[in-house]
Amino acid sequence: MLRTELFSDAVLAIALTLLVLDLSINETRPGELGATVLQQVPTYLAFFASFLYIAVIWLNHHSVFHKLTMVTLPILWVNFGILFVAVLLPFPTAVLATAFEIGNDADQRAAVLFYGGLAFLMGLTWNVLFLVISKSPKVWSDPNDGPMWRAVTKWSVGGAFGYLAAVLAGFLISPFAGIIGFILLVAYRATQASRITNWHEGHAV
Amino acid sequence: MLRTELFSDAVLAIALTLLVLDLSINETRPGELGATVLQQVPTYLAFFASFLYIAVIWLNHHSVFHKLTMVTLPILWVNFGILFVAVLLPFPTAVLATAFEIGNDADQRAAVLFYGGLAFLMGLTWNVLFLVISKSPKVWSDPNDGPMWRAVTKWSVGGAFGYLAAVLAGFLISPFAGIIGFILLVAYRATQASRITNWHEGHAV
Amino acid sequence: MLRTELFSDAVLAIALTLLVLDLSINETRPGELGATVLQQVPTYLAFFASFLYIAVIWLNHHSVFHKLTMVTLPILWVNFGILFVAVLLPFPTAVLATAFEIGNDADQRAAVLFYGGLAFLMGLTWNVLFLVISKSPKVWSDPNDGPMWRAVTKWSVGGAFGYLAAVLAGFLISPFAGIIGFILLVAYRATQASRITNWHEGHAV
Amino acid sequence: MLRTELFSDAVLAIALTLLVLDLSINETRPGELGATVLQQVPTYLAFFASFLYIAVIWLNHHSVFHKLTMVTLPILWVNFGILFVAVLLPFPTAVLATAFEIGNDADQRAAVLFYGGLAFLMGLTWNVLFLVISKSPKVWSDPNDGPMWRAVTKWSVGGAFGYLAAVLAGFLISPFAGIIGFILLVAYRATQASRITNWHEGHAV
Repeated sequence: MLRTELFSDAVLAIALTLLVLDLSINETRPGELGATVLQQVPTYLAFFASFLYIAVIWLNHHSVFHKLTMVTLPILWVNFGILFVAVLLPFPTAVLATAFEIGNDADQRAAVLFYGGLAFLMGLTWNVLFLVISKSPKVWSDPNDGPMWRAVTKWSVGGAFGYLAAVLAGFLISPFAGIIGFILLVAYRATQASRITNWHEGHAV
Repeated sequence: MLRTELFSDAVLAIALTLLVLDLSINETRPGELGATVLQQVPTYLAFFASFLYIAVIWLNHHSVFHKLTMVTLPILWVNFGILFVAVLLPFPTAVLATAFEIGNDADQRAAVLFYGGLAFLMGLTWNVLFLVISKSPKVWSDPNDGPMWRAVTKWSVGGAFGYLAAVLAGFLISPFAGIIGFILLVAYRATQASRITNWHEGHAV
Repeated sequence: MLRTELFSDAVLAIALTLLVLDLSINETRPGELGATVLQQVPTYLAFFASFLYIAVIWLNHHSVFHKLTMVTLPILWVNFGILFVAVLLPFPTAVLATAFEIGNDADQRAAVLFYGGLAFLMGLTWNVLFLVISKSPKVWSDPNDGPMWRAVTKWSVGGAFGYLAAVLAGFLISPFAGIIGFILLVAYRATQASRITNWHEGHAV
Repeated sequence: MLRTELFSDAVLAIALTLLVLDLSINETRPGELGATVLQQVPTYLAFFASFLYIAVIWLNHHSVFHKLTMVTLPILWVNFGILFVAVLLPFPTAVLATAFEIGNDADQRAAVLFYGGLAFLMGLTWNVLFLVISKSPKVWSDPNDGPMWRAVTKWSVGGAFGYLAAVLAGFLISPFAGIIGFILLVAYRATQASRITNWHEGHAV
């Protein structure tokens, strides 16, 4: 197993877990604890969405590296790019939650722009990863994977620009339109793992 | 060893460790540090209980995945469900501690409802995991484990609804009754590992 | 490699890293940043001492588990005990730093009592671990390790009660006497690894 | 794979991820969320620089340990030294960001001195690591690596004193001169990995 995978797993695991730090009860008066907890529904939804997002990133990461036998320096640097955006994610998550808890419409548009901009950057980074891999046959575990890697590369360009479209919709039309767009795109990306690995056969790593 | 196990271990390790972040001395006056530390007994008990709870989850996780030779996409998603609830746990732990430190009876009932609701969800998620595993003979390391997986599945339904009963007791009767119920249920779950792995023989993973 | 080792490593790594969270600059006025940083010397020393303490724990953990071929349920539970105290460590570290930054003599004695009490508990837990291992020949990687395990068990009793003596010295005589005692004891424990593994030969794990 | 590598990976992964904790929106008024986020540009740059710095440390760590077959106690202790400085890094990062957000020129010089002093210490620790490795032929995976280790040892002395020069430039001449020096030095260190491993051939760990 690649040390790169283990390091990436650790970073993704921590990013996933740090999301919970935004969940806290700052202050409450006796008898109002239940109400205080319930007021934070936007924070819980943002936590849940970002948890799912990182879970999908891990799933795709797992599928991709399972198909490689070695890493090169460019792959490692693109991987750092993916980890960089994943590590940042708790921050726009908190901004998004704050915007829907105490902000006005302008705040919500700004927060959607921020969160979605990062998601677009994440999509682009994956796109670069697939491009680098599809040009490096020596790292493939199966020499016949060329068409698969090229197909995934093309397919991921669409995904990245989908995020851009969702950002623009959220900023120009309505924050809610942007958020619905993000959720659909994350669900779409969750199918990426199946394109790379035939999960129905199960696999050992 | 499964990359899934390593990632799950990292997430559980972080959830376990983040519990300590709730332990802090906010402000104190000279000469009162000892008293300030002692005032937080409910927080220490909540920390201890949640540490034990995550330890038991890790033990069961360890026992279950030790008996699998591969993972499928449904197993991975149910595993994310287990990790999701585990990652959340520091939050209801803090709510419970706050309720017993500064809250009134209504706060304590709300906190027990919140903590116990999550424990019920955790129980249900394990139940789904056992159900999926018992229907996927290809992932078993031993083809004769069928009766064991079906027995554990049934047994874990009882565990999940035990948490529901404890929640209701804590909310309707007395917060303390609920907490005693939780402790007994976690102790009961701790015996689950022994049902899956014959620990008396020791084992290598 | 044991999954237990990986999980323990993750927990110790996080406990080690969470120590840094106590290092922060709460508020400062322009031109006074340098002075604000320098004021926190007790916090830095407490951070450094606890970092070394966890490093020594990891080193001993590494040496012990390197000599085992399997784990039993009692060993896992004692291991959870060690991890429990390690995870707690950032809390008394912060209390100790607070006592020496803003507290009076009574605060310092209370903080030494708290930190040292935990170190005593840690020592006792290692003692139980060595006792369990020395009574379980089936987990030893080398069947001739019996005398070594029994010697380490006896030796670690002395270490644990050394902490108790340092706590009492720190509480009854002078906080500084206690702290010097701790430092000597951690240095002494650092030699434990050499008693278990012959490091001069180097080793592969 | 060395347990030392896994533990180091976990510590570096956490240090990397904890950097994000400094990114937060303390308070904001409705309609000003976007502006609040944009005000923190120095914090984002400091986050980005420290992320890159830890990424380069991981890359070098990966390259070095890939070339070893075993570890000795001195190597483990020097490794703890590297981890110690890496774990500390989020603290001077926050100090640097604070200095450029709300501090005056004297604060910025003090912050550059603090950050750069730690980078100098990090450089010295790597220097000691290379010295210890170059004197321990038994730990090399390839017995012909002697000239390479000796060359890297010499080369890393220059790197460490480069940080010292950047610190002095930042303190005596201009904080910006120091920061530009750091960035060039981190970029220079990033080439260290290539000196140890021939990455153009790719490699499997």
